[in-house]
Amino acid sequence: MRLPAPVLAVTSGEPAGIGPELTLQLALEKAPSARIVAVGDPALLGERAERLGLDVELHALAPGEPVPAARLGVLPVWPVALREPSRPGELAVANAGYVLETLDVAIAACRERQADAMVTAPLHKGVILDAGHAGFRGHTEYLRDACGADEVVMMLASDSALHAGQPGWQGNAALRVALATTHLPLREVADAITATSLERILRILHADLVRWFGVTAPRIAVCGLNPHAGEGGHLGREEIEVIAPCLERLRHEGFALDGPLPADTLFTPRHLVGVDAVLAMYHDQGLPVLKYAGFGRAANVTLGLPIIRTSVDHGTALDLAGRGLADAGSLRVAVALAAEMARRGSIAAAS
Amino acid sequence: MRLPAPVLAVTSGEPAGIGPELTLQLALEKAPSARIVAVGDPALLGERAERLGLDVELHALAPGEPVPAARLGVLPVWPVALREPSRPGELAVANAGYVLETLDVAIAACRERQADAMVTAPLHKGVILDAGHAGFRGHTEYLRDACGADEVVMMLASDSALHAGQPGWQGNAALRVALATTHLPLREVADAITATSLERILRILHADLVRWFGVTAPRIAVCGLNPHAGEGGHLGREEIEVIAPCLERLRHEGFALDGPLPADTLFTPRHLVGVDAVLAMYHDQGLPVLKYAGFGRAANVTLGLPIIRTSVDHGTALDLAGRGLADAGSLRVAVALAAEMARRGSIAAAS
Repeated sequence: MRLPAPVLAVTSGEPAGIGPELTLQLALEKAPSARIVAVGDPALLGERAERLGLDVELHALAPGEPVPAARLGVLPVWPVALREPSRPGELAVANAGYVLETLDVAIAACRERQADAMVTAPLHKGVILDAGHAGFRGHTEYLRDACGADEVVMMLASDSALHAGQPGWQGNAALRVALATTHLPLREVADAITATSLERILRILHADLVRWFGVTAPRIAVCGLNPHAGEGGHLGREEIEVIAPCLERLRHEGFALDGPLPADTLFTPRHLVGVDAVLAMYHDQGLPVLKYAGFGRAANVTLGLPIIRTSVDHGTALDLAGRGLADAGSLRVAVALAAEMARRGSIAAAS
Repeated sequence: MRLPAPVLAVTSGEPAGIGPELTLQLALEKAPSARIVAVGDPALLGERAERLGLDVELHALAPGEPVPAARLGVLPVWPVALREPSRPGELAVANAGYVLETLDVAIAACRERQADAMVTAPLHKGVILDAGHAGFRGHTEYLRDACGADEVVMMLASDSALHAGQPGWQGNAALRVALATTHLPLREVADAITATSLERILRILHADLVRWFGVTAPRIAVCGLNPHAGEGGHLGREEIEVIAPCLERLRHEGFALDGPLPADTLFTPRHLVGVDAVLAMYHDQGLPVLKYAGFGRAANVTLGLPIIRTSVDHGTALDLAGRGLADAGSLRVAVALAAEMARRGSIAAAS
């Protein structure tokens, strides 16, 4: 059975940043893996296309109008109106509400099954805070709250195509790294990892590898917190007191878990073979390897939501906006990943 | 001018571990980059060669006898006698003194210019402590004290040959990662990094890149401590209060320093181009990338010593000893690195 190409709602992000031009690039893909529908202001997108000489025809969809099959040079748009005109590189507080509305449109479309997944171009947290949305912490938390999820897990995935041809590489084609803690000062990391949080995160990671990635029996490799995974307690006791007992409990339920392993042992071909995802204890233990492996081309995926959401792994790059210099690599990886997850998800739902 | 191949003293390490058999492998290299002289018990090496069917002729050198040119299948040895016979996998407290004597012989040979560098196979810290050498912390600290050095810096380097052919890779051929802190529990890392320690480490790293690696004006990329290098203070203030001011002071002296940069930004091709070494703030920020990049083949080098010392990056692997299963990859990288450093060092001394 050949399923129709999934519909991906791509929020074009901060209008003064590189998001709009990256989104336009998606309409110029020769072999699209999905039906893209941009979420944003058609006038803004048209202005950026003209400025950069991108031959893209915008097709604003009416409410209820189905998303058409992908066509080279045509970008369907779910229109959201800018609050005031936007110039590249110039943040405007008035448009913070516009950015959030693009998210709301995409979330609603996913929840109502008009889209199979959403992909987010970067927003600018500072300008949303300045506009008075005091509790705003980022895309991930906004989606968590909008979807009523208890806990979400940040996972980055590198582009599988980049690995497939790498000489000597015998691991999985794609590298996936989930994080037990995310954006915390390093000195707060050790205390932030508890048996409860670790167990919740592993359950979400396991469930979503099954649901969205088509992995029947996920094998997850878990890093220790300390160098050499604590070296039997000589370099820290969190492995003995927190991590290992948590893994042991979940193994009794049938989870396939390696570790806790030293991070510099785990990220070698011998240990990565057959591993579906790595759980790193903190940001800089896992992401430098992932970004290195992906040559800077990686995408972010939020696990634990009732919908599929992927994202670029970079910011708004205000200094590059409107100049045609921005690299759409990460957005392409995010799109490919969302399309793959949507196909896997619908196979899982159908079976 | 063609310099003679450098002499490398290779200490064969813990006799019950894989060190002796890895050392024997070096005599079977078809294109040796150096004149190897093993330091260890010739009877032990002979027994291991016979057990594993390695066709290696041992040639015990008399005191003062010059190290001959490399010959396939011949391993010159500076003899040190075992205190009692050693069986693979069985640690013996009596032989701790033997292991330390092999180090003393190699250190003396380097200091007296009978060897150009020393390369160490793994020792077993536990058995040396059990034998009553209470202050023993490892090779690095033993060498530091034996050479009267104030501070040493641990740097790992991956095998350049592995990178040269990697598709899409535009960075330097070899990746070198030095550490600002080494074997500490994660929760102690932030407090261990001070302006004083960081400055000393950067001075050693800079000086040794010039002296041993032939880099005229080293460019060093420095990681931040926190994720996103602290994101302007939102994710920690060590970058603002400690790291950036230290880098600024050294820049005034002419050091070429990038950073502090987010670790997951720094380890991408765009930022690594032209960088001679990376300084990571802690073990698991830098070494997972290095080991991943080197497919598990990396070597350790101790900077800040008056002599050249490289090492394997793995342990004694008692469970593999005597079975011919151990991979000599890291020892080969350590040998190639020591040979390269010795050649660079003698060019620097001659010019």
